[in-house]
Amino acid sequence: MKSIELYAEKVAQLIQSFQLPPKPDALYGSIRYIFGLGGKRLRPVMVLMGADALGQVNHDAEIMALVVESFHNFSLMHDDIMDGADLRRGQDTVHKKWNTATAILGGDALLVKTYQLMDQLQGNCRDQLRGKYSKLALEVCEGQQMDMDFETMDTVSTQEYLEMIRLKTAVLMGAALEFGAMAAQGGEEACTALYHFGVHLGMAFQIKDDYLDCFGDASFGKQTGGDIVQNKKTYLYIKALELGAASELALWVGARSPAAKVAGVKAVFERIGAKREAERTMEQYYRGALQHLQGAGLGNEATEYMAAFAAQVWMRQV
Amino acid sequence: MKSIELYAEKVAQLIQSFQLPPKPDALYGSIRYIFGLGGKRLRPVMVLMGADALGQVNHDAEIMALVVESFHNFSLMHDDIMDGADLRRGQDTVHKKWNTATAILGGDALLVKTYQLMDQLQGNCRDQLRGKYSKLALEVCEGQQMDMDFETMDTVSTQEYLEMIRLKTAVLMGAALEFGAMAAQGGEEACTALYHFGVHLGMAFQIKDDYLDCFGDASFGKQTGGDIVQNKKTYLYIKALELGAASELALWVGARSPAAKVAGVKAVFERIGAKREAERTMEQYYRGALQHLQGAGLGNEATEYMAAFAAQVWMRQV
Repeated sequence: MKSIELYAEKVAQLIQSFQLPPKPDALYGSIRYIFGLGGKRLRPVMVLMGADALGQVNHDAEIMALVVESFHNFSLMHDDIMDGADLRRGQDTVHKKWNTATAILGGDALLVKTYQLMDQLQGNCRDQLRGKYSKLALEVCEGQQMDMDFETMDTVSTQEYLEMIRLKTAVLMGAALEFGAMAAQGGEEACTALYHFGVHLGMAFQIKDDYLDCFGDASFGKQTGGDIVQNKKTYLYIKALELGAASELALWVGARSPAAKVAGVKAVFERIGAKREAERTMEQYYRGALQHLQGAGLGNEATEYMAAFAAQVWMRQV
Repeated sequence: MKSIELYAEKVAQLIQSFQLPPKPDALYGSIRYIFGLGGKRLRPVMVLMGADALGQVNHDAEIMALVVESFHNFSLMHDDIMDGADLRRGQDTVHKKWNTATAILGGDALLVKTYQLMDQLQGNCRDQLRGKYSKLALEVCEGQQMDMDFETMDTVSTQEYLEMIRLKTAVLMGAALEFGAMAAQGGEEACTALYHFGVHLGMAFQIKDDYLDCFGDASFGKQTGGDIVQNKKTYLYIKALELGAASELALWVGARSPAAKVAGVKAVFERIGAKREAERTMEQYYRGALQHLQGAGLGNEATEYMAAFAAQVWMRQV
């Protein structure tokens, strides 16, 4: 196993080598642009990690790393339109820099490209990888649709919310590890266990994302309270409603002072027990992840490496 | 070979058998809805025709018919957003009936579904079909991007325009015939010739579309002149500019009376020779189509059938 930095370097090289036609400018320029925004590239790194844990980073693992990062960028291009987001990693989103048509078409072309990339797979699990990939892609669409639906629904249960983040976020993290493991010809049981490890880690990761937006340490530079100001249906909010805080929270919906609103809603989340429930649920998923990791039957080095990786994702403060 | 009506019936059965999950409602409901809008279903019919011309309508041909119709519907869902179109076949478009997010996601899911369908291909040309399909899908995205780009460009050459409609419309008609022919295990030369036959027919078809919007017989019930009122860069308009009608056409851009504008611009198109050039170009593509058909080396029955089909597409008045 290698350091995350080394895997990230490899991913950067793979992206560098990803060939796109020059024209139409906007169509392929928008794809180059979103790849260029960088980021942690956690998902393709996980593909390489999954391959190394079960064998080695071979040609097929490299292809699947590029597929996973391309898919992630496709979904960002389309999600940013739906969310009306103007900025991504401090830069204009694609639909802002070009227009909605280009963001739709750039995403469409990138989705097709992921399948074109998979035509280059050489191992005997190529059909299986393709099948699993399509299933994953549909699940992510379903998760995003649920997220959109939630905006106009009066009540959302925590169960529905957890299913939404599983589909929208967690399955891609599980699939990233699984695809790498499959590309490296790992046994079925180990591949499946890594999938569930990744999904559980992804659940903890996403609930933590909600949690940090509310209770994160602002000294790390990230602004907190954004979800509260926008009345977003986060895990904390949904759980607080379930715990009976509806009338208290309703008082804050139209509050004029954002600072007072954030402080007031945070106090509700704490007092009603939603904060504690979020912590409990995150931890449950984190522990579940570690259990699946144990069941994967990897060697000691790979198991320790994955556990350390999980701890790092889990401990993040921003 | 069978009648077009019989092929269309078969396509309707295939669509009927296309399984989609129940939830999320909006995501899969939007896909069911756009399939339900019906239409001529010319493209999947062409897949079945292509298969029958080279062999018979087998399992793989049926799959590819469904793939082609699904792809067409995917592109309609996304194009309608970009064009801001409220109606399709007299009914609300998907983004109008639901919202933009659902139209984006429904299209995305349908594009993934086309690849899932191709996982069911059984013949030995499945990899080749997949490769050709991805190439086609990218070309259609490129064509739509060019069409969008044209809206804000000062000048577009007829060459650029012809390339745009080739990518946006014609290659799908060529591919439909080719996919069917390939699924039926047709020889490479015949498959390629049918592709070019379809592409040329598609070019004639699309230029005729522009032509009929302007010079069509309103007694057939379709309103004419819409493109002129909207100052759309059609083949006629671009050709008229090339022939030196810029200042004359500029007079009509902001005209207040739509009826006077349509009559005035039509007169310009006639006098400057753009109408005649459009007729000449359509005919050139139509003849090209027939030449490729001759080169396909099909049996007499299939050749005559295809020629009659081309004549029917060519002679349409609406």
